[in-house]
Parts: sequence; structure tokens; C-alpha cells
Amino acid sequence: MSFITTLREAQKKNQSLVCVGFDPELSKFPVHLKNHPDALFEFHKAIVDATADLVCCYKPQIAHFAALSSEESLLRTINYIHETYPGIPVILDAKRGDIGSTAERYAIEAFDRYQADAVTLNPYLGRDSIQPFLDRKDKGVILLCRTSNKGAGDFQDLISDGKPLYQHVAKTVAEQWNEHGNCMLVVGATWPRQLADVRNIVGDMPFLVPGVGAQGGDVEAMVKNGKTVNGDGLVISSSRAILYAGSGEDFAAAAREATLALRDEINRYR
Amino acid sequence: MSFITTLREAQKKNQSLVCVGFDPELSKFPVHLKNHPDALFEFHKAIVDATADLVCCYKPQIAHFAALSSEESLLRTINYIHETYPGIPVILDAKRGDIGSTAERYAIEAFDRYQADAVTLNPYLGRDSIQPFLDRKDKGVILLCRTSNKGAGDFQDLISDGKPLYQHVAKTVAEQWNEHGNCMLVVGATWPRQLADVRNIVGDMPFLVPGVGAQGGDVEAMVKNGKTVNGDGLVISSSRAILYAGSGEDFAAAAREATLALRDEINRYR
Repeated sequence: MSFITTLREAQKKNQSLVCVGFDPELSKFPVHLKNHPDALFEFHKAIVDATADLVCCYKPQIAHFAALSSEESLLRTINYIHETYPGIPVILDAKRGDIGSTAERYAIEAFDRYQADAVTLNPYLGRDSIQPFLDRKDKGVILLCRTSNKGAGDFQDLISDGKPLYQHVAKTVAEQWNEHGNCMLVVGATWPRQLADVRNIVGDMPFLVPGVGAQGGDVEAMVKNGKTVNGDGLVISSSRAILYAGSGEDFAAAAREATLALRDEINRYR
Repeated sequence: MSFITTLREAQKKNQSLVCVGFDPELSKFPVHLKNHPDALFEFHKAIVDATADLVCCYKPQIAHFAALSSEESLLRTINYIHETYPGIPVILDAKRGDIGSTAERYAIEAFDRYQADAVTLNPYLGRDSIQPFLDRKDKGVILLCRTSNKGAGDFQDLISDGKPLYQHVAKTVAEQWNEHGNCMLVVGATWPRQLADVRNIVGDMPFLVPGVGAQGGDVEAMVKNGKTVNGDGLVISSSRAILYAGSGEDFAAAAREATLALRDEINRYR
């Protein structure tokens, strides 16, 4: 089953557009886990076990594992999700982007080494840099469009032919790159107006929406501006506000409460 | 000593603008190395020993190591260069790009974990995504500008305010991001006209120039259009044409010949 289909079924089954992001910071881990030999795996396993019936996917961010030389923990975490909760897909948040032969190696990294179901990519290098990912029809290809950070507009807002760069990216992905129906776009929850603009351009294409929780995006404005006519088409990612909702031995229960609250808040506005 | 200073001294000492890129493909390795337990390290060690007096830097491409789960080989290779040839800096070709907290983790990956002297980055997310790298004054920050691939123009050529996006990137990096003098730009050898345009915008800022060798960029046009008034300001990267110049036990000697030929060809046009 393709990533997009699995994602949609998980959204229906769990009545949830929530994606829990894994941005592990050891300094924020509960004391009892900090000295565990595979703290990263144990931490995420507990989060997954506490939230798997409340989410539509998980999204590990690879830099947080790479900075700790913890590729093996990332692999174990993804394997655990696939084996224990096979209906919940995994997005590898890597924001890769390189030319043809190297892009192929990055596709192998994401899809074969880590067995991710989808990967985030940077569109700056153009179509041929994305082709090796697009060709993996069963996998999700998630292109940066309007990112959630303050500096997003530095280049993404440059106006060309009457519209900003991020809208050119949206239009190009929707009209040219999405032949296999496996594309999504990243649009930050911090930019509700831009969410509406991109939605108008791309029809039903799903968005990956970071920026709620710690980054302060408003849930109501984000859902109302970003959803499709069916109240769908959003994968809303929260990391720190869920992972570190609690800091004691009950961190997983606190993460469950935070996930539940976000899921229900989102669903009110769909 | 900062990356840029080390680079310039290596260019002078070795009379060379050549950077050897490491894009390891096991299928192209000489037979006698293919089954070595750390073939990646042994291969690059031999290439380094054969070329260290002919280059100004090395540039391992991280995807080629990651796809083979060979982070340890990458680390060993970089350590070997630093320990054996301390005047030759190492660029980690990673093309990373992410928002603030994650960008910090990528900076740790490149500069602390791998001890790279410089890293390639994607500017699409804007200034704040690059800040954690810019703050490492002793390290090189190499921003994609006009890449060497065929699809480069898909977005990089979109015209805004009378000039293409890649020129906005060049101008922004030169005028705003380069406060510590540690920035460079990636401009492909395959685009001699654009090399000249970017050179006109950024003064003496050095370029990392991929696209000679296997990608077919013309050396004379590239050097003449890209160099500074002093015949300088270029780091010209070749990977496959050097790494796989020979396929037998003499592969390192063949790599030396190919490096020497490229160095001398470049120097003719400076």
C-alpha cells in the first residue's frame, strides 16, 4: 500500500491529523532514561506506545540522531513502529536535496536503509534532483514550500511573475512533479494566510504542517485555512510540546494527554 | 586558523584550485579493495596519499557514505586527512537546510561529529536557518547558488525584481550573511555565463565549482568566467573523473595523473 493511502487510512482509523515529531534532546529526557544505553530508542518507544492510537504518522528528524552518532537508534525506532503498529507510516524529516547521482544515494538512505515511508526534500535544485524520489511511487515525497521559521520569507517570498517563489514551488509540484500522486508540501502553521494561498493552488494535495506547539502556530487559523473541502489534507506535526509535555517517569502519559488535546482541538475546526 | 585562510594557503602551497570529491560507489572500486572490511576508508586513503600535494581541499559527499551505513568510514577518512595532511581542509558536502533548533544539530553533525572545516548548505529556508553555521567563524559556510545540474534553472532562474533567484541568493550572502567572511557559493562549471554574473555581484568571495569532469563543464570557460582579478577565488571539484580514472591496482596513480592534468589545465587559464 502506498504512503498516501496508508496515511489516509490511519487518519480515518484514529480520527487524527496529528503527527508526532521526534526531535530528541537528551537534556530534556526524564532522569530515569538519561543513562540508559539506548535512551533514544527507549524514549521514543514509550512515546509511540502511548500515542499510536491517536496519530496518523510519526516524523523522526534525522539531524537530532546524527548529531549524537545515533543512526542505530533511529533505525531501531522506525523498525519498532513498523513492526508494532504497521498501519502508522513514518516520515523521515531530512530535507535532503542534491543532484541526480547523489539524490539516488539519499533515496537509498531514506527508503532502503531507514525504511521510511516518506521523506522531506528541498526543491531548490529543481526537478531532476527530486526524480529518484518521485520514481518510488509507493513512497511519499514531501517538498518544502513555505517553511515555519521567521526567515522563511527571505527567498520564498520573492515575487516572480506576480506571485511569490513558494507559490511557484506549489504550482510546479502540483502540476508537474505529482504524476504518481505521491507528493505533499510543507507549509508552516505559523503562516495561515499562505496556507490558504497554497491550498487554492494545489487542490487536495496533503500538507505537512509544522509549527504548532513550541513554535506558536494558531490551530484554529491553521486548520481552517489549510484543510481541503472535506476537512482533510493536513498532517499536523508537533514535536517538543508532546515529547516534553512531562519530564518525570510519567512523560509518556503526559505525551498522550498532549497528543489527545491537540487531536481534539484540530478536529473541532475540520 | 579559519577554513578560508587554510584553504588559501593550501591553494598557494600546492599551486592548485583542485578539490577532489569523494562520491564512493563500491561497484566502481578496484577488485582488490571491494571485499576489504573498510573498503571506503582504504580507497580514499590511497586517493588522498596520491593527491595531497596537488589539491587545495577534499570534499566527501555524505549521502554516498550514509547509503552504505558507513558513517564510521567517513569519520576515519576525515580524521586521516586532518592528521596526515593538516594543511588540507575538508568540506563536508551535505547540502543541509533546516530551521533554527535543527540547524544547530546539523552544525554539530558537520563540525563536531565529523570535524569538517566547511559544509555545503541550501539557502531556501532563509537566514535564520543558516545562522548556527555562520556563527562558527572558523568554519566555512558554502551556500548553493546556481547548481551544476540540468534542472538548476527550474526555480533558481525565476526572475524577481529584474534578476534571477540565484543572483538574489548571491547578493544576500555577500551583503548580509558574510559578516565573518566565512561564506562561499556553489556555482556549477556547467554554467559559465552565470559564473561571470555571480562573480560580478560578489567580488572576491570564493566559489565551490562542481561540474567539471563527468558532468562535462568546460574548464577554460569556467576559469575565465569565475576567477577573481587575481586569478583566484575558485575551488574546482572533480569526483568521478579522478576517483575512477583507473580501475586496477594502480587506481591511485591514475587518480594522481588525472588530478595533475586538471590542476595544470586550470592553471593555464588563471
